[in-house]
Amino acid sequence: MIRGTTRLIAHIGVATETFKSPQIYNRWFERMGIDVVVAPMGSKPEHFPTFFKSVFELTNIAGALITMPHKVSVMSLIDVIGSQALVAGACNAVRREADGRLVGEMFDGEGFVRGLRRKGRSVQGAHALVIGNGGVGSAIAAALAKDGAEELTLFDPNAAATNALAARLRQHFPRLRTWVGTCDPSGCDLVVNATPLGMSDKDPLPVDVSRIAPTAFVGEVVMKREITPFLAAARERGCAYMVGVDMLFEQIPAYLDFFGFPPASVDDLRAGSNISY
Amino acid sequence: MIRGTTRLIAHIGVATETFKSPQIYNRWFERMGIDVVVAPMGSKPEHFPTFFKSVFELTNIAGALITMPHKVSVMSLIDVIGSQALVAGACNAVRREADGRLVGEMFDGEGFVRGLRRKGRSVQGAHALVIGNGGVGSAIAAALAKDGAEELTLFDPNAAATNALAARLRQHFPRLRTWVGTCDPSGCDLVVNATPLGMSDKDPLPVDVSRIAPTAFVGEVVMKREITPFLAAARERGCAYMVGVDMLFEQIPAYLDFFGFPPASVDDLRAGSNISY
Repeated sequence: MIRGTTRLIAHIGVATETFKSPQIYNRWFERMGIDVVVAPMGSKPEHFPTFFKSVFELTNIAGALITMPHKVSVMSLIDVIGSQALVAGACNAVRREADGRLVGEMFDGEGFVRGLRRKGRSVQGAHALVIGNGGVGSAIAAALAKDGAEELTLFDPNAAATNALAARLRQHFPRLRTWVGTCDPSGCDLVVNATPLGMSDKDPLPVDVSRIAPTAFVGEVVMKREITPFLAAARERGCAYMVGVDMLFEQIPAYLDFFGFPPASVDDLRAGSNISY
Repeated sequence: MIRGTTRLIAHIGVATETFKSPQIYNRWFERMGIDVVVAPMGSKPEHFPTFFKSVFELTNIAGALITMPHKVSVMSLIDVIGSQALVAGACNAVRREADGRLVGEMFDGEGFVRGLRRKGRSVQGAHALVIGNGGVGSAIAAALAKDGAEELTLFDPNAAATNALAARLRQHFPRLRTWVGTCDPSGCDLVVNATPLGMSDKDPLPVDVSRIAPTAFVGEVVMKREITPFLAAARERGCAYMVGVDMLFEQIPAYLDFFGFPPASVDDLRAGSNISY
């Protein structure tokens, strides 16, 4: 129950309608007796820089969760950039230090890699294809690189995003082999859709699924439904997979730690949420 | 439960800790199945103009409740000023119209007068003393004038606030007799504390209670406790009284109507709240 003493975590993005975090976090805060609430705040790109600075001037702000389309643009608005955010070129969590500095970090990739591990897969030595090189895709690429992937193929319709991500990866992980210019999944151990394709029924598949090896593991960032057309097609080929919400749940303990809250387990977060998949 | 689809009512003021509205409104919204939440937002005066404009650019903003110390300064930030706000020179509720204009109105005075009526008192022909001529006190004075008070005595340590309020009252209610320069309650039918005195145990009484007639009715805006030292002293003299929270509950149906929500009764709002007085 929200009171005058309640501190806010601003969940900023647009459109807000598909946000899942408020339900998950708020139920956990309530169970834990923590007087904090996550509130969705729909901010358009032209309004975001002013709103972001302004919301952090509130006396009862506890932090911000940043989501599409602001994960990249927020980077120029923070004072201290975490290591994963630096490689990803994107940031999805911001807190204010006592001295007023805004510290940002990126947990999408960490969530993805933790989810992979929970499914019994290892990133070590893997050949991965990451389709979509915006905020989420960059974060996943950064986490895969950190966790020991051997080759990363990056693809995005926006070639500039791909090239910038490849350059950052080569700088921070000189032994990683990075490929750009193709979205062919053949030969990959790991194929990740980090585009919004699958949000709408009319979307094409993000990749030619018939060229994914049945032994490959596929991952998805779209959370609007459990099994997207991409996951359904890959599952039909025999691929193991991870749904979008898995990545969300897996990263929440890392977020909570970043914001200074007590430890949380993924199982506990899932059990207390009203998301059934 | 807050979801991605939830719209926000920003409750803006500082400090937020004593806010009561979030608990009252949110329980009512929940019972009514209305997907809206009131969230406290602590904004300091130097940050308020930017934050206020910015929060109304959110795609899911449903309105704002404005409280101390912003009720007067918000007047220069809105596009359309309601009639009570115009006389009060202060505003405590703002909504955004479809065309983007911000419309503000003041309900504190309406809440006070409704509360008086519920206690069986009439404003018609009354001689009233309003101590504290900031946002709330101005609103109460405006509502008393509208409801037919015969004489109003205004007092505030800030004489400029008193004089400005007196000028607006004389302009809008030329038949009302308005006095300034004294806080002597003798001869008054109605004595209202609209200062923050009573928030702290160390505060002096806002007025010399020994000069209040036992037949007078006293009102209080401080909501931090049910019976403030001022109310306790007046009650001891035999005065009938109204506590601060009464004014809050009485004005909520008017607010809800202003924001476009279904009708609510004060009894229903009280019964559903966790405020026991």
